[in-house]
Amino acid sequence: MRYDSLSKQELEQLYKQEQNAYADCKSKGLKLDISRGKPGREQLDLSLELLNNLKSAEDCIADGFDVRNYGLLDGIPACKRLFAEILNIDESQIFLGGNASLQLMYDTLAKAYTHGLLHSPKPWSQLDKVKFLCPVPGYDRHFGISETFNMEMISIKMNDDGPDIEAIEEAVKDPSVKGIWCVPKFSNPQGVVYSEAVIKRLAALRPAAPDFIIMWDNAYCIHEFDGPYTPIAEILALSASFGNPDMVFEFASTSKITMPGAGVAVIASSKANITYMKKLLSLQTISYDKVNQLRHVRFLKDMKNSLAHMQKHAAILKPRFEAVLGALSKEIEPLGIASWNHPKGGYFVSLDTLPGCAKRTYELCLGAGLVMTTAGATHPYGLDPEDKNIRIAPSYPPIKELEQAIEVFCVCLKLAALEKLLQS
Amino acid sequence: MRYDSLSKQELEQLYKQEQNAYADCKSKGLKLDISRGKPGREQLDLSLELLNNLKSAEDCIADGFDVRNYGLLDGIPACKRLFAEILNIDESQIFLGGNASLQLMYDTLAKAYTHGLLHSPKPWSQLDKVKFLCPVPGYDRHFGISETFNMEMISIKMNDDGPDIEAIEEAVKDPSVKGIWCVPKFSNPQGVVYSEAVIKRLAALRPAAPDFIIMWDNAYCIHEFDGPYTPIAEILALSASFGNPDMVFEFASTSKITMPGAGVAVIASSKANITYMKKLLSLQTISYDKVNQLRHVRFLKDMKNSLAHMQKHAAILKPRFEAVLGALSKEIEPLGIASWNHPKGGYFVSLDTLPGCAKRTYELCLGAGLVMTTAGATHPYGLDPEDKNIRIAPSYPPIKELEQAIEVFCVCLKLAALEKLLQS
Repeated sequence: MRYDSLSKQELEQLYKQEQNAYADCKSKGLKLDISRGKPGREQLDLSLELLNNLKSAEDCIADGFDVRNYGLLDGIPACKRLFAEILNIDESQIFLGGNASLQLMYDTLAKAYTHGLLHSPKPWSQLDKVKFLCPVPGYDRHFGISETFNMEMISIKMNDDGPDIEAIEEAVKDPSVKGIWCVPKFSNPQGVVYSEAVIKRLAALRPAAPDFIIMWDNAYCIHEFDGPYTPIAEILALSASFGNPDMVFEFASTSKITMPGAGVAVIASSKANITYMKKLLSLQTISYDKVNQLRHVRFLKDMKNSLAHMQKHAAILKPRFEAVLGALSKEIEPLGIASWNHPKGGYFVSLDTLPGCAKRTYELCLGAGLVMTTAGATHPYGLDPEDKNIRIAPSYPPIKELEQAIEVFCVCLKLAALEKLLQS
Repeated sequence: MRYDSLSKQELEQLYKQEQNAYADCKSKGLKLDISRGKPGREQLDLSLELLNNLKSAEDCIADGFDVRNYGLLDGIPACKRLFAEILNIDESQIFLGGNASLQLMYDTLAKAYTHGLLHSPKPWSQLDKVKFLCPVPGYDRHFGISETFNMEMISIKMNDDGPDIEAIEEAVKDPSVKGIWCVPKFSNPQGVVYSEAVIKRLAALRPAAPDFIIMWDNAYCIHEFDGPYTPIAEILALSASFGNPDMVFEFASTSKITMPGAGVAVIASSKANITYMKKLLSLQTISYDKVNQLRHVRFLKDMKNSLAHMQKHAAILKPRFEAVLGALSKEIEPLGIASWNHPKGGYFVSLDTLPGCAKRTYELCLGAGLVMTTAGATHPYGLDPEDKNIRIAPSYPPIKELEQAIEVFCVCLKLAALEKLLQS
């Protein structure tokens, strides 16, 4: 019984029912949170060995270097080799950072703003207008970086195989369009995996701006929770082969492999870009935490072992996504009031309500003690033009709480849809 | 027999002697390095416990928070309390960073450049001219940050009690003078400790620029190696009492307390500044490494225990400084060709050659296999107007190598002085 097939009277009756259900939810005094892609306690416990796998002075020597001391701005060779294998590139293409890949992304665009990138005619702070392409829905923290550096964000529609590549090819003809944000594998929030065809066309772009940058946030590079590891096309080699050797900055981290509060992040790019960035970064830090880089090498060892480790995360995450998707399929699908994706990896379910219902659903959830990602957050400036996208993050709460949360969410979603339908 | 009391003939004879001594040095094929303030191996071993003092999931809970996960942008409360005690301020004045205080100093001035500080009429990138005061000799990495953001650096003479405060009071009348670099305790490289009188006058400055900033790099806050811990005047409270509550950003780190490659750094400032910076930094990172913050809390515990720990460093460092100062006193003092400081803490001996001899001494050292800090590095733009200052860093090499190094250095210093005197 799809809502759009019901009479006004039938809708009103349902509305009363759902109001009662909502009152029930409220009366429970719940405090639930499915707003952020935070690993749960069980996941953190998978990496306990990381805490004390270096014990002695001898343990701290790697490639003949004492990682406890100053030096090695770009990180320890052993950890570069680990990331090079995971990202299928050469270790000379790696710069190792600290705990957050966000910091490295911010730094990259901050350098573009204050000093310019390798091929910038001038620093972006000296330009009248810088535009940046933002596939939507997308990651609020990406948009936050663009906004803080006064970029005009241009939304690009996401399709099932990646962002609308024709729209991108058209947009980059404008020389003030300086870059694009991409989460190529298990995109945040839709879980879209970019197809090889889309990645190739991105690598082959002919932007008018000589310093156009693809911000390739490969946050979920080995983060399948359903099915085997499936690599995506390697964009650094592709872009080089298409004559764009310095167009791509790739980012990754161990935040969702080991510990979000104590991981290792990485920039991967052309040797020329790494050399250029090292020169600028040498003014900013002496090195990131090299002891922690070595802990990660000893713990993750290599690609094979890292993938085996990710299977343990998968075993914890899969039932959580099934709980969410199962509830939606049972409670919402028959009503025809929302659509959502079925991700095989990453951290999110992206749900589209009826137009104009996302904010209201968010507010209702909040009223019943359930914190969701703020409606609109998945769009530049927090403005979702159709007010329909909601991001669900099932990883953090204990499974019982997650089940409660999704139950509350379904009630709120129905109530918001009924309000909308009864208004029109 | 001071060189300036000798005849030309006597100088020529000495010159031949020292040439032979230099040839001897060269023939040994030495590879020595006293260029950077790097702790030695023995010092690193003092903090081995830090490596594995967190072992279990329970160990990672602090103030009810699991430090392994996302969150707490400004760091864990327990570590704020530790630094608050060490710096004699309130924990609400603390922002905890990652491995390098340099990163936090860079970030602070980068924010001034891209966004402006709390009281900036506009971002510094939009100003025609930004001038910055640099006590000289000083720390090359400070000057590097000023230079990369296009500041005009103005040298301020260092006296025995701190930088020339009258020159500073005069300079800050210029509204384009936006700040000053200070290493208030055991200044790099001279080991000068700012007097209470100088610190008070700094705190009471009346700069024309509303966003004038004192960059208070308290890198050696508890780093006495000779004599008991002696606190300096606390500038944050002083500046507030003089009506400049937001004028000072203080920086410190554990780089030379625990491990330079895996420490914790800190910003200390007014609550208003911390709030302002947190807003900007929230776009840049989710948090710095909180597990490492907790390791430091468990290891250093409190001020008392930290001071006891620093005494172990002192026991290692003091003989090294004595080796350097002893050799200089024996070999150089009678000749009247150089002067130097006698620090009680910090990491450096600062030596002044005869005018015009620093670069030549540096080159001669290099030729004999001894790497010193580049001559000129202690001045803005690497330009020492009198070409006389040389920084000696005795901490890193094994003591035998240090003794060799200072022997070579003395030969080179004499040779350079003799060359100079014979030319004139």
